[in-house]
Amino acid sequence: MTYRAPVKDMLFVMKELAGIDAVAQLPGFEDAGLDTAAAVLEECARFNEDVVAPLNREGDVRPSSFADGQVHATPGFKQAFHQFAEAGWQGLQHPVEFGGQGLPKLIGAACGEMVNSASISFALCPLLSDGAIEALLTAGSHEQQAAYIPNMIAGRWTGTMCLTEPQAGSDLSLVRTRAEPQADGSHKLFGTKIFITWGEHDMAENIVHLVLARVAGAPEGVKGISLFVCPKFLPDGTRNDVHCVSIEHKLGIKASPTAVLQFGDHGGAVGHLVGQENRGLEYMFIMMNAARFGVGVQGIALAERAYQLAVRYARDRVQSRPVDGSTPGASAIIRHPDVRRMLMTMRAHTEGCRAMALVAAAAYDAAHTHPDEAVRKQNQAFYEFLVPLVKGLSTEMSLDVASLGVQVHGGMGFIEETGAAQYLRDAKILTIYEGTTAIQANDLVGRKTARDGGATARAIAARIEATETELAARASDASRTMARRLGAARQALLDVVDFVLANVRTDANAVFAGSVPYLMLAGTAVAGWQMARALAVAEDRLAAGEDPEFMRAKIATARFYGDHILNRCTGLRDSIVEGAGAVTALELEAF
Amino acid sequence: MTYRAPVKDMLFVMKELAGIDAVAQLPGFEDAGLDTAAAVLEECARFNEDVVAPLNREGDVRPSSFADGQVHATPGFKQAFHQFAEAGWQGLQHPVEFGGQGLPKLIGAACGEMVNSASISFALCPLLSDGAIEALLTAGSHEQQAAYIPNMIAGRWTGTMCLTEPQAGSDLSLVRTRAEPQADGSHKLFGTKIFITWGEHDMAENIVHLVLARVAGAPEGVKGISLFVCPKFLPDGTRNDVHCVSIEHKLGIKASPTAVLQFGDHGGAVGHLVGQENRGLEYMFIMMNAARFGVGVQGIALAERAYQLAVRYARDRVQSRPVDGSTPGASAIIRHPDVRRMLMTMRAHTEGCRAMALVAAAAYDAAHTHPDEAVRKQNQAFYEFLVPLVKGLSTEMSLDVASLGVQVHGGMGFIEETGAAQYLRDAKILTIYEGTTAIQANDLVGRKTARDGGATARAIAARIEATETELAARASDASRTMARRLGAARQALLDVVDFVLANVRTDANAVFAGSVPYLMLAGTAVAGWQMARALAVAEDRLAAGEDPEFMRAKIATARFYGDHILNRCTGLRDSIVEGAGAVTALELEAF
Repeated sequence: MTYRAPVKDMLFVMKELAGIDAVAQLPGFEDAGLDTAAAVLEECARFNEDVVAPLNREGDVRPSSFADGQVHATPGFKQAFHQFAEAGWQGLQHPVEFGGQGLPKLIGAACGEMVNSASISFALCPLLSDGAIEALLTAGSHEQQAAYIPNMIAGRWTGTMCLTEPQAGSDLSLVRTRAEPQADGSHKLFGTKIFITWGEHDMAENIVHLVLARVAGAPEGVKGISLFVCPKFLPDGTRNDVHCVSIEHKLGIKASPTAVLQFGDHGGAVGHLVGQENRGLEYMFIMMNAARFGVGVQGIALAERAYQLAVRYARDRVQSRPVDGSTPGASAIIRHPDVRRMLMTMRAHTEGCRAMALVAAAAYDAAHTHPDEAVRKQNQAFYEFLVPLVKGLSTEMSLDVASLGVQVHGGMGFIEETGAAQYLRDAKILTIYEGTTAIQANDLVGRKTARDGGATARAIAARIEATETELAARASDASRTMARRLGAARQALLDVVDFVLANVRTDANAVFAGSVPYLMLAGTAVAGWQMARALAVAEDRLAAGEDPEFMRAKIATARFYGDHILNRCTGLRDSIVEGAGAVTALELEAF
Repeated sequence: MTYRAPVKDMLFVMKELAGIDAVAQLPGFEDAGLDTAAAVLEECARFNEDVVAPLNREGDVRPSSFADGQVHATPGFKQAFHQFAEAGWQGLQHPVEFGGQGLPKLIGAACGEMVNSASISFALCPLLSDGAIEALLTAGSHEQQAAYIPNMIAGRWTGTMCLTEPQAGSDLSLVRTRAEPQADGSHKLFGTKIFITWGEHDMAENIVHLVLARVAGAPEGVKGISLFVCPKFLPDGTRNDVHCVSIEHKLGIKASPTAVLQFGDHGGAVGHLVGQENRGLEYMFIMMNAARFGVGVQGIALAERAYQLAVRYARDRVQSRPVDGSTPGASAIIRHPDVRRMLMTMRAHTEGCRAMALVAAAAYDAAHTHPDEAVRKQNQAFYEFLVPLVKGLSTEMSLDVASLGVQVHGGMGFIEETGAAQYLRDAKILTIYEGTTAIQANDLVGRKTARDGGATARAIAARIEATETELAARASDASRTMARRLGAARQALLDVVDFVLANVRTDANAVFAGSVPYLMLAGTAVAGWQMARALAVAEDRLAAGEDPEFMRAKIATARFYGDHILNRCTGLRDSIVEGAGAVTALELEAF
């Protein structure tokens, strides 16, 4: 067994931090309480542990391959994807009317972590289908929804997001793919899209491309971009004029083919407008926001698996006497304090970000289905604030965690057969795709902080403060220390919010010089807040005699988060508030 | 041109921080003043830029290959190595009597950075020869020195260090390779060595293995290990019984073959004892200490090249409007504050660690040749304190720098053809080989801090304080801010030294739980100290009208170091002093 899903921790977070009982009171989620969650998670764990996880290394050693316009997935992937869809995992969060399970995002996010721990390359295919389904649910016509969504939920077809072009990466205003209106109401698409994940493959019968393009005569920039659905095979079975011309040779996630797609080289690819003309970017953002959260979950998933591999090695590998002389000869390296420090760092990051992500998911559920509009709005603001943190922090920490995973293995970590190095290679895409960390940070500064005058950020700080107060009133040293650390982190967060608001209009360079550190600070504070809440709950449960081993572990991990991670916030604050000038002081010519 | 050697920065550090004028007053180094350094560095730059640097990517794409016991180096490597030796680079720091140049380590370290920037895989071969030469100079007989050193300096033969065995990595007490005494005074060696860098190849006529082994009946543990010289071909030309059975499939440095060597499978490998029996580990440490410093320099070298690649991309890649609206359309991404922050982080780390390494090198020179014994001792203590910092910090930062280098490239960074990803893959070995970061940190705590009761650490802190005083008295805001940051870092360092000394005997676990953070703190403080000294010098030179562009850049980079890197020390101190308990609190079974 190379992966064991952390079902217990997920259920603890769902119950104690994310409030699954409240989610189960939302309309439509009446059956989605803790018992359902436990049953679904157990089933999901079994599937991913048994079917998907064994494919991960195989996908690295035998990546997807390209020949003559065809992409062949790694052996075993097609069968596993078939099983995945058969078992209903593709439809987990999608509407029952289209064949889905209609479960809340809270449960979906936990299941998403598992399949990504099992294999990120594999999981990317259903992740992209999820995005396409989401976009069609939002902006597609009834006919489009009926034509595409059930087939995607059934796993017969998969979806893609075709945004990037060679000159248009983070900056989608530069998209040049053009759409020519046809007499029958359809369009013909012409252009080149790059970095299209699972843009071509043999795992399903058809591939539904959602494509950003410009209708002739549309305004320049982002306001002239429309969204089109453009399947590989048209409904009548004819092959559409979209062709894969190559796939990339990448650092990691090698099993997932990253395609260059040519649209319209043979007369034009038939596409149909989704929603209204020139509103394509808006619809695409719906997919992207879901995908950003999903990529954050990938970071957590990767960190979890890297951690598990490192723990196994550290238990087995015998080397050197313990520094405290507790055994006379060499011992398992897990007994060495620095190995423990590395493992605890990996574990604390993972649990902290998982708690943050699941709390965000529950807010999403409330934001979409709570009967009270004020509650919906408040949850929506909270969720939207957290999306860049989940994406940015979880992926950045996953890089550190994967690197520590290699380090725990020593020289063996550098040998590919060990498997630890793959996680490091795979992790590096997570801080880049679906918007780099800097793009997430821009979102945090602009849309999530400046736009509402810091209201959401301050509301979160107030909630953090309430947790501090609760912890400070407790008897344990662990709680009181955590209250102090959390207070320092909250104050740092507020200082930076003040700095952002005071300068964003007058000195944008200074604010954006600190945007990524701000994201790291805010994410660390929010994840640390969840660990602080977990600490309090675990102390109570422990006192009540409930699952003492788990509760003691949670307390220890939360405390580590406080002492070794949460305390980075103050330094980040200083860098942001006092160090902005130094970021842009060097003249361009001097680099 | 894919690499341009930073000769100007190296000469600035040599002259203004490392004191090359003083080095040139040491006996034997009378000709090694700034003019000589400039001439040597220019020549070295040309060679590495033109001959070695173009091979780096080739070595990644076409690694060393193994077949039938033979290893073939990447095409082009053999010719380049021949040119390298012909031009005298192998003998740069070695004695004139054996055909070397007899130059100080200060110049050697700068040249070492260049060849490693050009290609770490390539540079490893001469680096290992340097270690073997060093060991033979220290412990070899006159006959051994005469037989091996001139051939290695001429590049006809190369050297290796054969330490690691499957069960003996960081813990060399577990070495099992055995040496059986023969009637003629030689020994026959039997055993398996793994992870032997350039352990087999076709770049030279012979390979001189320096091998740790146990003579039959030797004491257990590290006190029973002896050092043997065991060449691939014996002096009479017969093939010795040491054979490569495989090479590793690695994450990075793929051009440098990492061999598994079998000694004695066909009757015994002929080896000759180097120095005295059972003192092998002591001699090996001579090689290792040189190699550890050398690996630190590899980190700096890799960071420099990753930085240069990222700067080039950031200048060329056009994407998105500047946040300050300074241009109406999309601009080169180097104009975006977060890209600047990443590039400045890369640059500041690299310059800081370079300054620290060259200052250490100058101390090594004084420690070995200064006429006054007290001065020698003082410099030796300073150098030895700095070795784990140079190794540990420079390699850890090189990982961050390489990762940022990929990040600057966005999606293109994840595509192998771009080249940025190779640096990340290559960097990961640097924190592992020649002693992991944790091993360096153990050395810092044990031999470098506890053993002299903190005397060296406190002496360094006092020197840092003198720099603070000087900076605080200056007029500029940059100087006074830096003085403040440096003071906080120094205080943090002293707090940790006190903590280490107070607890190392009574609570070793607590001290070693913070050993790596202590290393990072001490390294950051010392590198930051050098940047602070550089700031003061640069302000003076700028006021005098000397090279204003360079001096302004140095001031800006130093300031960035202060505002964004040096200020991490306080958080590290808190983690070490207050967080030790949390590192080992989780019960072993709970991982």
